[in-house]
Amino acid sequence: MTTIFDAPDDFATTALAGFSAIYRRYVRLVRGGVVRATKVPAGKVAVVIGGGSGHYPAFAGYVGAGLADAAVAGDVFASPSTASVARVCRQAEQGGGILLGFGNYAGDVLNFGVAAERLRAEGIDVRIVPVTDDVASAPVEASAQRRGIAGDLVVFKIAGAAAEAGLSLDAVERIARHANARTVSFGVAFGGCTLPGADGPLFTVPKGRMALGLGIHGEPGIREDDTVPASDLATLLVGKLLAERPAGANRVGALLNGLGATKYEELFVLWTQVSQRLEASGLTIVDPECGEYVTSLDMRGCSLTLVWLDAELETHWSAACDTPVLRRGLPIATEPATDMIVNEDGAPSFGPASDVSKAAAACLADLVGAIAAKLAEVEDQLGRLDSHAGDGDHGQGMRRGSQAAWQAADAALEMGAGAASLLAAAGDAWADRAGGTSGAIWGLLLRCWSKAFDDETAMADAAIVAGARLALDGVTRLGRARPGDKTLVDALVPFVETLEREFSVGTPLPDAWSAAAEAARTAAEATAALTPKLGRARPLAEKSLGHPDPGAVSLAMVAAVVAKVFATRR
Amino acid sequence: MTTIFDAPDDFATTALAGFSAIYRRYVRLVRGGVVRATKVPAGKVAVVIGGGSGHYPAFAGYVGAGLADAAVAGDVFASPSTASVARVCRQAEQGGGILLGFGNYAGDVLNFGVAAERLRAEGIDVRIVPVTDDVASAPVEASAQRRGIAGDLVVFKIAGAAAEAGLSLDAVERIARHANARTVSFGVAFGGCTLPGADGPLFTVPKGRMALGLGIHGEPGIREDDTVPASDLATLLVGKLLAERPAGANRVGALLNGLGATKYEELFVLWTQVSQRLEASGLTIVDPECGEYVTSLDMRGCSLTLVWLDAELETHWSAACDTPVLRRGLPIATEPATDMIVNEDGAPSFGPASDVSKAAAACLADLVGAIAAKLAEVEDQLGRLDSHAGDGDHGQGMRRGSQAAWQAADAALEMGAGAASLLAAAGDAWADRAGGTSGAIWGLLLRCWSKAFDDETAMADAAIVAGARLALDGVTRLGRARPGDKTLVDALVPFVETLEREFSVGTPLPDAWSAAAEAARTAAEATAALTPKLGRARPLAEKSLGHPDPGAVSLAMVAAVVAKVFATRR
Repeated sequence: MTTIFDAPDDFATTALAGFSAIYRRYVRLVRGGVVRATKVPAGKVAVVIGGGSGHYPAFAGYVGAGLADAAVAGDVFASPSTASVARVCRQAEQGGGILLGFGNYAGDVLNFGVAAERLRAEGIDVRIVPVTDDVASAPVEASAQRRGIAGDLVVFKIAGAAAEAGLSLDAVERIARHANARTVSFGVAFGGCTLPGADGPLFTVPKGRMALGLGIHGEPGIREDDTVPASDLATLLVGKLLAERPAGANRVGALLNGLGATKYEELFVLWTQVSQRLEASGLTIVDPECGEYVTSLDMRGCSLTLVWLDAELETHWSAACDTPVLRRGLPIATEPATDMIVNEDGAPSFGPASDVSKAAAACLADLVGAIAAKLAEVEDQLGRLDSHAGDGDHGQGMRRGSQAAWQAADAALEMGAGAASLLAAAGDAWADRAGGTSGAIWGLLLRCWSKAFDDETAMADAAIVAGARLALDGVTRLGRARPGDKTLVDALVPFVETLEREFSVGTPLPDAWSAAAEAARTAAEATAALTPKLGRARPLAEKSLGHPDPGAVSLAMVAAVVAKVFATRR
Repeated sequence: MTTIFDAPDDFATTALAGFSAIYRRYVRLVRGGVVRATKVPAGKVAVVIGGGSGHYPAFAGYVGAGLADAAVAGDVFASPSTASVARVCRQAEQGGGILLGFGNYAGDVLNFGVAAERLRAEGIDVRIVPVTDDVASAPVEASAQRRGIAGDLVVFKIAGAAAEAGLSLDAVERIARHANARTVSFGVAFGGCTLPGADGPLFTVPKGRMALGLGIHGEPGIREDDTVPASDLATLLVGKLLAERPAGANRVGALLNGLGATKYEELFVLWTQVSQRLEASGLTIVDPECGEYVTSLDMRGCSLTLVWLDAELETHWSAACDTPVLRRGLPIATEPATDMIVNEDGAPSFGPASDVSKAAAACLADLVGAIAAKLAEVEDQLGRLDSHAGDGDHGQGMRRGSQAAWQAADAALEMGAGAASLLAAAGDAWADRAGGTSGAIWGLLLRCWSKAFDDETAMADAAIVAGARLALDGVTRLGRARPGDKTLVDALVPFVETLEREFSVGTPLPDAWSAAAEAARTAAEATAALTPKLGRARPLAEKSLGHPDPGAVSLAMVAAVVAKVFATRR
């Protein structure tokens, strides 16, 4: 279990600060991440990577010459916010465009994807490469749905070397995608990890058993089995990966990775067996690594990653690099960076707003306040619900996000913001402070809803209803979830459809909203019958069967709070 | 727990082989250890370090330019044998003499000390520096009795830099001793580790509690307490070390070390608090390190090490080095070593022996065989006994060592060895194969005993009795244990005294031996009332109270077996 921390909420940011202090010759701390502390040539493609914390050295430990230019760090096992990703990218960008690398999880896909859209709107060329190396998470035919585990390092290493060699963004993107297509991993877990401040482990594996293919946040594995001697474990790991050996592949890069509490000497013992089997299959092993490269707090287990090398991939795999945890080849000459890091901590400014819009903004701020109060009240309830389906942090994230949204709304009100601006600012604050998938979704939801308003006219009931549809469109477009995926979308769709239907037949907004909130509640409860899809931080599927999705439940709760406010104001 | 292994007996050697394969650009595997894979200037002082396995990266991970020249590795948590230390030293020696560095544990002091004597007899100048950084293990007035923990790395790093700078053996030894005198550590443990193949952990710490000052093999701590937040833990660790701050010390090197399952992000969180407190005390922190540098398999816990720097120590602490786990400063130019490593795997050869001595040798070989058979039979019994006092491996070590001695005796017999040579060869084999403290003691015991014989004359009863005294002298001189320390010496002293007394008054040898064996048995049982002294692998003192010392018990068992053989041959 995780034993050393002060406030669990601050664990990830404090750890990053400590890391940055120790490795100051490599990195500089910025809000939400780190950037190289050494000079980077102008025009070089910036390789920016990231994901949740709790996986050190992933991802900050990979920043340095020949590898990444910057890393974005979310909370423990939670995606960094869209705002964090965008902010760190702006600081890493050197005029050559940005390659964004991350593991293929819903929250990361969403936050890195939305950040890429924002940056493109600012004129920065950004490409995204989600890593999909874990063969246990989807069959080879659906390899784009696979999640990213220790193969992250391999893909980032190769992309970083290509960028360091001065290649163009097109070339770096092509090589990174090629590396990802040729990288496969398979892992086993012997025991679970415990989040800072949590009472018990995120998941457990019975003594003497191992979970095959378990994800690095406890996502479903493919089966459980008795533990086996090192030689049989090597046969299992190598066998799973050789099954996907491409025709003609005879040289491999290899990474034998420990998850945290499975120690180096065990990995070295296993490596003697793994290397024998790879060589017996006619493979030449190139620059293998063996150690802790993608951990999961103190999880017990390990994974084997192979990258099927061709001449181009081998050049970049074996190229020099110098980072806190990975070092290759001849030293790379670096000198300390001299540019100033400017954190964007200034308060937002708002355009002019009419008095009617300011009055509407005040109503919206009250609504956000009511939502925040309700979510603080139900934090534990949502947390317990999430412990069946995820890592138990949903209540915490919703409380933190809504609290930040409320503060941002109040601040915007004081600064004279209109309705549209206030709601957008609240959404951004929610996403930035909550992090994770639900933070990004709620940020997106509020920001999209705000587009139905403006800062000039009164807030019409029809605009409120239209905003609901904009919110749904935004969430499904960027969040990629579809009805039946056991997410908040399962409650949002009936909510929006009911609201539109009732309003279109003349039902007054408070009543139409009430009916919609009730539809959302019913739909949220019905998610208990659904099987969860693969995604971040979902332990063994059976665990969540029979329990409703916490995201859908919290959406229904928020809808009910708003209905109550509307009813009292009728 | 340790999960990945094949044969537990082979865990340490296989892990070292795997490590050497991965880090082949740094090290070459030799029997019992590793030596640098890069060229070393002729005449440079060789820094050879070592100790038990299970502590990776200690010690093999420290081998490389600017740090150690070679590392000797024993079995898990067991000292390397005298023969291993000597063998690795011979391969590392470059004509400039050898500095031998190791943690201050009985087994290591014994094996490295005896090896140093052997090497000096061969004309190699060898100095030994036992590291004594753990302030919890003895009061400051008795600092020479302190054990070595993560301060090992600090002392070796400074000694390695001094050697790399071309200083003489005198200077390197002086600087290493000075570094040791200025290095202090204090640690806490949150949970125990499990040896490969063991059923349960070596020791446990109750959930929510921490053991203050616990040693890296589970040796006694100073007290148990509730776990505290990171900030209070920092206050505790820093406070314990500042209490020993020398006058005028205002610059410190620092090492925040994780024991295995306490992870990097926890250490980084703790570092933010530790560094604040050090700076608040007016200290300037120089080149701090934070990570896993001396582990104990998957033990949960951490330690803080400080070295009070003066100008000389700071130069060497901050000097460049390049090893698998520690890298400092500008790169050091190296080129691959070209000399051949010659493992001394040739069979021993013996001088000429008379027929009567060969006949005596046959009797001795039978005796060794009887001892080996008995120790195989009681392996589990001795193991259970040792689990109260140590790490439960005493039975295993005695079985392995006596088996090896028997094989060596048989081989010597076939090659026509006389009595003295056969017994010496059996002792060397015992020490080499058993490892650990008891292996070294038994090797020493047989080798010293053999000095009462020769390869020419018949084996007189008086020589057998004289040999017992030689054995006792050797064991107490090099092993440093005194009666009352709860070791084998507590049984050996009454055994030898009884044997001498009975024999001197005319009692026939078989009867005298029988009486001596009985005295040893009584004395071994009486060790149950003794409190164990600090030493390798002794968990919390209370645990062993009321249980006899396994080393004393096994000595009494061996004495009884020999008495039985003598009785049948009377």
